[in-house]
Amino acid sequence: MPSDTGSGAALTPTIVFENLQAHQRTAALKAAIELDIFRAVGQGPGDLASIASHAKASERGTRILCDFLVVNGLLEKADGRYRHTPSSAAFLDPASPMCLASMMHFLSLPTLREPFEHLADVVRNGRTVLPGEGTVEPDNPIWVTFAQSMAPMMAPLAGPLGQIVLQGETGPMRVLDIACGHGLFGIEVAKQNPQAHVTGLDWLPVLRVAIENARKAGVQDRYDMLPGSAFDVQFGGPYDAILLTNFLHHFDIDTCVTLLKKVRASIKPGGCAATLEFVPNEDRVSPPMPAAFAMTMLTSTVAGDAYTFKELAQMHTKAGFHDIVAHPIPQSPHTIVMAQA
Amino acid sequence: MPSDTGSGAALTPTIVFENLQAHQRTAALKAAIELDIFRAVGQGPGDLASIASHAKASERGTRILCDFLVVNGLLEKADGRYRHTPSSAAFLDPASPMCLASMMHFLSLPTLREPFEHLADVVRNGRTVLPGEGTVEPDNPIWVTFAQSMAPMMAPLAGPLGQIVLQGETGPMRVLDIACGHGLFGIEVAKQNPQAHVTGLDWLPVLRVAIENARKAGVQDRYDMLPGSAFDVQFGGPYDAILLTNFLHHFDIDTCVTLLKKVRASIKPGGCAATLEFVPNEDRVSPPMPAAFAMTMLTSTVAGDAYTFKELAQMHTKAGFHDIVAHPIPQSPHTIVMAQA
Repeated sequence: MPSDTGSGAALTPTIVFENLQAHQRTAALKAAIELDIFRAVGQGPGDLASIASHAKASERGTRILCDFLVVNGLLEKADGRYRHTPSSAAFLDPASPMCLASMMHFLSLPTLREPFEHLADVVRNGRTVLPGEGTVEPDNPIWVTFAQSMAPMMAPLAGPLGQIVLQGETGPMRVLDIACGHGLFGIEVAKQNPQAHVTGLDWLPVLRVAIENARKAGVQDRYDMLPGSAFDVQFGGPYDAILLTNFLHHFDIDTCVTLLKKVRASIKPGGCAATLEFVPNEDRVSPPMPAAFAMTMLTSTVAGDAYTFKELAQMHTKAGFHDIVAHPIPQSPHTIVMAQA
Repeated sequence: MPSDTGSGAALTPTIVFENLQAHQRTAALKAAIELDIFRAVGQGPGDLASIASHAKASERGTRILCDFLVVNGLLEKADGRYRHTPSSAAFLDPASPMCLASMMHFLSLPTLREPFEHLADVVRNGRTVLPGEGTVEPDNPIWVTFAQSMAPMMAPLAGPLGQIVLQGETGPMRVLDIACGHGLFGIEVAKQNPQAHVTGLDWLPVLRVAIENARKAGVQDRYDMLPGSAFDVQFGGPYDAILLTNFLHHFDIDTCVTLLKKVRASIKPGGCAATLEFVPNEDRVSPPMPAAFAMTMLTSTVAGDAYTFKELAQMHTKAGFHDIVAHPIPQSPHTIVMAQA
């Protein structure tokens, strides 16, 4: 092999090997979650025998799985014992309130995984191989799973979103949460402003998850349900603020503009729309997570995308909004785009 | 989210997200190879329209795929045009003699992929969910695909292996290449020593690939075939050197010792055995590739492993070898273990 690139670093195929085998990393994390490995590691003492016993699994299998997790940065190993990294303690141990392990339920759904088995065809055709409108086909049951299992990823974003939307406002207000899913964003607004009244819009089976979350948060008296499609139901209102979280990316630009016009028409003078999105830089290849999210939209929708701020601003402008501002959420891959009606 | 870990770095779930979605990276590389994206990028000019045209694919799909490859370090993007990284130029462009893309044929085989769909069960049981002996079931056709498609990964190792085995020896000698596969290692010995005579041992359909490679290398007059299983056939000999490349990892330690005894019995006094392996450090979690290889052995075999040097040395010692020395191959994940009979 050649020993040097132009930069002086050794030229090796390591990155090619990594990508060839990357699927193993997802399978290993999924297996570790199913086998409750991260709880076992958190409880200690971290020796192989006790982890295997907790997982009701063979020592050979447990040892190779745990070593593999260490290689992938999801555990540490010292003196033959496994222990948490700061990340795995916070985000993978079920004993942690920030545990994200339930996300695997949603991300492993055949609906989301199968298009990757036919990715060359997806790229050829430029759209999902799923039937109809893909994941946004009406009443697609995956959104119930989304509402149930992706909440831990969204929960840390709710506080910042509530603060940006409310700007300290504590008076009576009405908020519409479009495609509310788990409902956490609208619920947070209701928590931060005891005079806010929130309407959650989503398909009915999804709303049942949201209303249960509203009940847990103690805001169910100020939480209404508006079942149906955002494109079909009458929004009512007018509202002081309308939330559009994790939604626009499923659709093409014209569809987004149409929806944003309908949104703007339901906002009071001086009110605002708050859009939560993965927003890549204009180069579309950074930061990694927002940029990579376009692949999920390619495989699961007909014409969705990870839109840049420029594109989102243009959509909002075409729909009549003004003063459109991006608020990246620190230490998260998400951005809130605020627009005045 | 908490803002700091003990080390002062921000605590983010990035590594968890990466592992949750890592399967997408393998699918993207596979699709890009199938669509001949890397050749298109190498030919230039690297604009989206010309790459999509070459790939006979939609611009939406091609753009999202290429951006995703950039995120994963497999392409670069500047001023809206895609171009090779040093690694993708060397190892993914079919115009490069070092191109590794054919490896995807082997690594995508259902036999190798399907156990990962049931990894929790594999870990519970401590062995592959494949029937019988897994990938080393007699006459498993995957080894023909291995011989045909993994040669580019092995080719850069052949030169160093030949030099270490021959140590400048140019006189008449006999070499047995056990589980020779593509045959490149024995063929290289024959190329480096014009008086070496090589016998390739493997299942017959695999040997047909090896003999064709021997023909291409012009050494077919000094290349014999010994069809069958290394555990069953008589080796003949005695040999000056016996090669055991990418083979011991499929079996448990006792089986390896049994085989090594048979190997040693077929080596002339003063001769040697040369084993090529992924050899992790004693911690079993470094370096990344040799350590991670244990996962492939867990999923595809009954009792194989990525053995440490200590384990390999013990096996060789039990089989009667002495002066056992590890030779890591620079800029590769492989190590050659030399042992004197």
